[in-house]
Amino acid sequence: MISVIGIGPSREDMSIRALNAIKAAEVIIAYKAYIKPIEDLLEGKEIIKKGMGDEIERAEIAIQKSKEGQKVAIISSGDPGVFGMGNVVFQLIGKYSDTEVEIIPGITAATFAASKLGAPLHDFAVISLSDILTPISEIKRKVESASKGDFVIAIYNPLSKTRKEPFEVAYKILMENKKPSTPVGIVRSHEEGVSAIVTTLDKIRDHEINMSTTIIIGNSMTYIQDGYMVTPRGYVVRSDIHPLSREFYERFLEGEVVEGPNFECEFYPCHEEGENCTFCYCPFYPCGDSSTGGHWIKDKGVWSCQNCDWIHKDKTVQCIQTKFPEIVKEVDDLKKRKKELLKLRRECIKETE
Amino acid sequence: MISVIGIGPSREDMSIRALNAIKAAEVIIAYKAYIKPIEDLLEGKEIIKKGMGDEIERAEIAIQKSKEGQKVAIISSGDPGVFGMGNVVFQLIGKYSDTEVEIIPGITAATFAASKLGAPLHDFAVISLSDILTPISEIKRKVESASKGDFVIAIYNPLSKTRKEPFEVAYKILMENKKPSTPVGIVRSHEEGVSAIVTTLDKIRDHEINMSTTIIIGNSMTYIQDGYMVTPRGYVVRSDIHPLSREFYERFLEGEVVEGPNFECEFYPCHEEGENCTFCYCPFYPCGDSSTGGHWIKDKGVWSCQNCDWIHKDKTVQCIQTKFPEIVKEVDDLKKRKKELLKLRRECIKETE
Repeated sequence: MISVIGIGPSREDMSIRALNAIKAAEVIIAYKAYIKPIEDLLEGKEIIKKGMGDEIERAEIAIQKSKEGQKVAIISSGDPGVFGMGNVVFQLIGKYSDTEVEIIPGITAATFAASKLGAPLHDFAVISLSDILTPISEIKRKVESASKGDFVIAIYNPLSKTRKEPFEVAYKILMENKKPSTPVGIVRSHEEGVSAIVTTLDKIRDHEINMSTTIIIGNSMTYIQDGYMVTPRGYVVRSDIHPLSREFYERFLEGEVVEGPNFECEFYPCHEEGENCTFCYCPFYPCGDSSTGGHWIKDKGVWSCQNCDWIHKDKTVQCIQTKFPEIVKEVDDLKKRKKELLKLRRECIKETE
Repeated sequence: MISVIGIGPSREDMSIRALNAIKAAEVIIAYKAYIKPIEDLLEGKEIIKKGMGDEIERAEIAIQKSKEGQKVAIISSGDPGVFGMGNVVFQLIGKYSDTEVEIIPGITAATFAASKLGAPLHDFAVISLSDILTPISEIKRKVESASKGDFVIAIYNPLSKTRKEPFEVAYKILMENKKPSTPVGIVRSHEEGVSAIVTTLDKIRDHEINMSTTIIIGNSMTYIQDGYMVTPRGYVVRSDIHPLSREFYERFLEGEVVEGPNFECEFYPCHEEGENCTFCYCPFYPCGDSSTGGHWIKDKGVWSCQNCDWIHKDKTVQCIQTKFPEIVKEVDDLKKRKKELLKLRRECIKETE
């Protein structure tokens, strides 16, 4: 039996199953650097260390040792199925009959990095920028489709000392397809531990990036809050309808409100000259996420829209109007159908980017 | 301190860090179903069970308990940052000052499912089909871009008893953009354990799919081998150049071989009438992966191209010719520059799909 074992990003993050499988193995085959975190588990075992680039050789040795009746463990960092040894082993076992293989999963860099940054993931794409085995055209296509699809993107193997082209190519595509202010997290493992930096897409180059770095690039809703990267999923923060908002929407539903700028209003402009007052009171209040600039007033339980004028842009109003009448037929729907409203908000954020 | 803890897909797959964090916690907050796998760790702790849909409430309780000075653990299945409690908690802590949160990552369904199927992942996209909080237009866009980008796709929350539309929509897009024969893995957790099925895209509907199912859809290179799903990364299987191939490529490099079908050849057609003989001997032999139909003859160490006529298609020849002269300047480059050649093969597989 060959066990291909993912030891995750660190010893503490290894699974109980992986720990037990290492203990049970008689032969351990690993890239040199992966031996260190598990050294104390290896007494009495045969250890075969190999260099980077010897992947096929590692797999062949494992198969031979296993055929000799030994319990073999191949060690992968992270998860063995994510740019790890799993694919190599499965590619090679086709050569032989009666070779049993099990994959023991581990925590992969995307979720580990995310855990150090806050909560940046939603639907996400994992892309390796290593062009050693992958043509640059394939890397380009992937970065482009993931950007256009508005995925959160986790980048593995972004840069090495000699391999810089794929990063340049990918960065160019990202800058063309995402806002320069898109939040980005850079997580780097080094001897002293792990460092996590939250920055924006246009400032990636100000930070050290190497082969031990995972980069997470936000989607159009990702925001930075207290130094953390957050991609909201769209949960409803419950709240009552404010009496003034209720009064406004009663008139709105009667068709009695001004569309566009309301020059007659004594408060005009609340935000800035030319603002669209169609949705004078925001129908999503409180959205509870900062994608459009709002924020909580700490410890008061009050959501402030001071820095959000998104609802007063013409394009936003246009987009919301397409579905608003279907969702809100009476004022209480602002509360009762808030989930639907927040989904409409998501659609329109993407559309008005 | 609030720890948002990913317990992975099963107790055995939980990390050591998660295990210790649960032990250290004083208050455990969890969706009911997540209590069972950790029940033996909970003695003496306050347990707060909540239902599905109470995510915001779970987070608010955690914050309050933490403000009272207690060590709080919120339990997520899989990884808390992948459609788990991480995002909800980070969305809500913005309301308060001085709330410390740590995310403890876990093995997520994509890599767990992959480990049961073989080695299906390469660059991959994770997409949830739940439209409870996500507009269907967003789900559509993601499935479409991931398909067009030729990602391996891991689908979470594919179907529930009441929520069928997103699956129908996604399936239609997948069928339009991928070959019906694309390998697909279906991994389902149930009371007796985990079942893993390897099938093809056109046959997905023959299998049971529910909310506890993760579906992994291959890319254009994924193949099925001995019941496993394998996406090759492109490693070079070393081998000497066959003397007949050497002789052929000596003539090839002198411009002395026939382009197109070679009706003069005594073996014509090797594969089928009309085949293109420009690359009579395959320059990628042995590619060692079955994406184009080849396979190992078990226990003989011999690669058979019997079921692969890809190199003899006109479109393939055309694509390979664009870069072949740059890579192979002398016959030994077939061996020395095999990595480059296999990258060219990857490009052309995608192009000739």
